[in-house]
Amino acid sequence: PCNLTGWWENDLGSKMQVFNVDNDGTFSGEYHTAVSSAKKPIQPSPLIGSQHLDEDGQCTFGFTVNWKKFSDSTAVFVGECFKGDDGKEVLHTSWLLREKVDSEPEDWKATR
Amino acid sequence: PCNLTGWWENDLGSKMQVFNVDNDGTFSGEYHTAVSSAKKPIQPSPLIGSQHLDEDGQCTFGFTVNWKKFSDSTAVFVGECFKGDDGKEVLHTSWLLREKVDSEPEDWKATR
Amino acid sequence: PCNLTGWWENDLGSKMQVFNVDNDGTFSGEYHTAVSSAKKPIQPSPLIGSQHLDEDGQCTFGFTVNWKKFSDSTAVFVGECFKGDDGKEVLHTSWLLREKVDSEPEDWKATR
Amino acid sequence: PCNLTGWWENDLGSKMQVFNVDNDGTFSGEYHTAVSSAKKPIQPSPLIGSQHLDEDGQCTFGFTVNWKKFSDSTAVFVGECFKGDDGKEVLHTSWLLREKVDSEPEDWKATR
Repeated sequence: PCNLTGWWENDLGSKMQVFNVDNDGTFSGEYHTAVSSAKKPIQPSPLIGSQHLDEDGQCTFGFTVNWKKFSDSTAVFVGECFKGDDGKEVLHTSWLLREKVDSEPEDWKATR
Repeated sequence: PCNLTGWWENDLGSKMQVFNVDNDGTFSGEYHTAVSSAKKPIQPSPLIGSQHLDEDGQCTFGFTVNWKKFSDSTAVFVGECFKGDDGKEVLHTSWLLREKVDSEPEDWKATR
Repeated sequence: PCNLTGWWENDLGSKMQVFNVDNDGTFSGEYHTAVSSAKKPIQPSPLIGSQHLDEDGQCTFGFTVNWKKFSDSTAVFVGECFKGDDGKEVLHTSWLLREKVDSEPEDWKATR
Repeated sequence: PCNLTGWWENDLGSKMQVFNVDNDGTFSGEYHTAVSSAKKPIQPSPLIGSQHLDEDGQCTFGFTVNWKKFSDSTAVFVGECFKGDDGKEVLHTSWLLREKVDSEPEDWKATR
């Protein structure tokens, strides 16, 4: 099955390291983002999530990145693991970034 | 600060229970969805995530729900806690649901 | 069939007026947004779009709002018309707001 | 300024032709999608939208595709035009696809 343990890099140059994946699919790790809309300097940020452990190696997964070291935002990623023609595993993900807003009327613009 | 521990219910009738929140903001829990696009019957599903612990009680947070008990999909939620006029806490969230697809060319339709 | 012609108001207090809907479903109108992330004052903005003309009155539709009068952003809405228990028509929509960014590396944060 | 008139092709092999862009930025055209979740065979579908006409050639734009010829869905796209290092124009877009659902309780799953 696809196991997320290890290092992954995306098109923007962001990297993430996934530590050990538990028997139930839970994992933690560290996200090194290459991009940020925060004012403070970027720092490696903790991530926690969960993956399926299907036999066919095309597991869906999701995780949360807490940017607390330099921002009050939170990001979530959801995706699936694929095996390319060259046998290399590749992750396809979508994400949402939640920025903190002061009040509910501003909620409409908090997520991108 | 806003602490997610406890029971929450959304407009669709889905409920979630967040267990203890750690000192670093990590939490786990169980999601009881009221809606599903899967064929098998719905079951309570494990969730894991992370929240900020800001003093002002308007923390952003995110979590992953692994539907493995009845589906090969994964969902992620991201949001913020607000205190309403009546003092009651309310969560505003956005979500993405990733369904498993067979191959990369089908990736475009996997996320809603 | 559901015809979008007329005035509609959403939860945030934004209003839109849809002018005549053509035989092929094309329509134009004006969007009066109640919220904005732009610096200039809000102005009514032109919209153009298209709807299905299904007999059952639950047509999907989409439209584009060009905010050029006070912003370099563009928004798109997509949704469906429903008839509530009280016989009143209600629109359920989702939207994306594209803000202008200077270069492709900033593209990741341009849409919310 | 960036003018959308002409043919464009995306990574999935979908093509679109934008006809003349009016002085106010309104345009129409035809979308030839390479992918579909509908049961009927794909057909070229009318699109209508609007673009900014900024001098710097990095205009945001949006458009609606009405799939009525083979589906009761509607799609919206929003994006921005960029000029690559090689002088070639490239469009970056995001999209939402609205499928028709029977009733409001199913609304949660209608958009991807």
